[in-house]
Amino acid sequence: MQLETRNSKLPYAIGVDLGGTNLRIAAVDEHGQLLEKLTSETQVTRGRDFVIDEMTSSIRQLMERSKGRGELRGIGIGVPGIIDMDTGMLRESPNLPGWSEFPVHAEIERRLGAPVMLENDANVAALGEHWLGAAKDYQSMGMLTLGTGVGGGVVLGGSIWHGLNGMAGELGHINVEPEGHPCGCGSRGCLEQYASATGVVRMAREAIAAGGAPGLAKLAACRDQEFEARSVHELATKGDEAAQAVFQRVGRALGLALADMVNALNLPIYVLGGGAARAWDAFAPAMFAEIRKRSFVYAKTVPEQSSVSAMSAGTASPPARTGKSTVIALATLGGNAGLYGAARLALQRGK
Amino acid sequence: MQLETRNSKLPYAIGVDLGGTNLRIAAVDEHGQLLEKLTSETQVTRGRDFVIDEMTSSIRQLMERSKGRGELRGIGIGVPGIIDMDTGMLRESPNLPGWSEFPVHAEIERRLGAPVMLENDANVAALGEHWLGAAKDYQSMGMLTLGTGVGGGVVLGGSIWHGLNGMAGELGHINVEPEGHPCGCGSRGCLEQYASATGVVRMAREAIAAGGAPGLAKLAACRDQEFEARSVHELATKGDEAAQAVFQRVGRALGLALADMVNALNLPIYVLGGGAARAWDAFAPAMFAEIRKRSFVYAKTVPEQSSVSAMSAGTASPPARTGKSTVIALATLGGNAGLYGAARLALQRGK
Repeated sequence: MQLETRNSKLPYAIGVDLGGTNLRIAAVDEHGQLLEKLTSETQVTRGRDFVIDEMTSSIRQLMERSKGRGELRGIGIGVPGIIDMDTGMLRESPNLPGWSEFPVHAEIERRLGAPVMLENDANVAALGEHWLGAAKDYQSMGMLTLGTGVGGGVVLGGSIWHGLNGMAGELGHINVEPEGHPCGCGSRGCLEQYASATGVVRMAREAIAAGGAPGLAKLAACRDQEFEARSVHELATKGDEAAQAVFQRVGRALGLALADMVNALNLPIYVLGGGAARAWDAFAPAMFAEIRKRSFVYAKTVPEQSSVSAMSAGTASPPARTGKSTVIALATLGGNAGLYGAARLALQRGK
Repeated sequence: MQLETRNSKLPYAIGVDLGGTNLRIAAVDEHGQLLEKLTSETQVTRGRDFVIDEMTSSIRQLMERSKGRGELRGIGIGVPGIIDMDTGMLRESPNLPGWSEFPVHAEIERRLGAPVMLENDANVAALGEHWLGAAKDYQSMGMLTLGTGVGGGVVLGGSIWHGLNGMAGELGHINVEPEGHPCGCGSRGCLEQYASATGVVRMAREAIAAGGAPGLAKLAACRDQEFEARSVHELATKGDEAAQAVFQRVGRALGLALADMVNALNLPIYVLGGGAARAWDAFAPAMFAEIRKRSFVYAKTVPEQSSVSAMSAGTASPPARTGKSTVIALATLGGNAGLYGAARLALQRGK
């Protein structure tokens, strides 16, 4: 377990990012300063009760250590899955088997004796980027997290947009190819099938099977290296055309889904995060070309030269607010977006 | 010109529906009672200044006649086109040639000496249905107007959602077929190409050209009757399979676009209006099947039996609020939705 610490007397909240692999917990004050941070492994295989025990005891530890600080406003927890906002149950969580019919929210709140807010992990990541990251100068934003799947979150006027059932923001399931690859959700051709790390690997394997992709075939045959989105991206960067073509498909899929969002909501900024977003250089040109072709709202309001150049992957700092032009930008908080967003959630509701 | 009249001492607004064919103007009080209504032809061919003269003199006439009434809160005008919300100019209006680089808003306000609000016609129709129509029991809604094109509007928390450039709600340009029929917007396969009256006629002609559509071919050859969406619908109702297949394509396109919206926004209700929505019986089964297949959010939250049966075209009254199930329903205000919505706009801002 790793621990970081800083001082502050401001009201604060505890943010938790409960991933399938890592459990991360942080105390964050209302100005967004990270006060303490605990990181440990999520031992999902040891079962739900074990993970909840670990999590609540780590949270209590952080509460204990924070007694000299400002007021604790609450605890926000980002979890990978769909949350029933009325009952506080997880409705669907492939990464947390055995959690689905369990009153997670009530149980954690009972154990900690403090207000707890549960939220979908992609939604808290969006809220984090809105609070302190790429979208911090904007009232509203949409976020796509390109990971194993594609998560999404929509923030309108500073708050996560939940919709009727708390299930809004499932942007990974915007359709980009009606008869495309089957998706775990039951549909076909969802964005997730083309813009996730999993999708990149599948499309690379399809290219190998179709022939004419010697570089990818060699990579896949190499025993020393895992065949993953990152290595496909490296190959594309080195000029391999078949690998580049994979990321052009990623870009087209993203452009099509983003065009739908621009046409429907005309949000000022869309943020791309998650591991596969690091391949920005490889997919961005196709993405910007597609969104320009597919959305007259975008094409009318964003000058042709401004989009790609302003947002190259090299830009680590958040983009400046650019008036009336739609911005598509990389996330800036990396893996901490969810932690900050979870804390923000508790700070927002705790007021 | 037709005139209707009623009494009220409540604050009221004037709503204007400036269509390419008809100009309709109404005084509506803050309870949604229609007090007076004027209908005339829009003589677009006589030019912009003529139409503005006609419109402002009709509005003044209504203001004059309303002097004994409550306070006039303002004038809302729905126009077919994209409005630059900052400058009050029309940016794109195929039905109002010559209006695009003219400061419509400032000119009308100057002539009338009263606060004027300009708004896209599909947006005011959405606001009307939200205020008094199919969505009156809901805080938020999306609306699709299936006419010559497909217009859209999104109402969130009671107000039209404008987005960054005032261009949100362009739901007719959600993509349903990436390599589909070219759209006037520059993209291909927009919803509008499959769910508008124009799209119905085009798909029927495609079916005739492909052969195996004798009923449609006969209809198209008939000189006594215009070959339009309504007649294709009549043929489908009589059991013609090729005509039915056209509306199945309409339904699939609508289902796909609505699934994207449910996945992204999870709104409680989506309302379908406009002339082509009258073919509900012919397209609804395919629409509901498609949305169920494409949106796990919809499938998880709407019981399989409830959707189609509850919303048959025979239901003229607004649907009851059904808790946590997404509702897809026909509009109930018909051609008056835009008038009511335009008046509502002025009443909302005039407060």
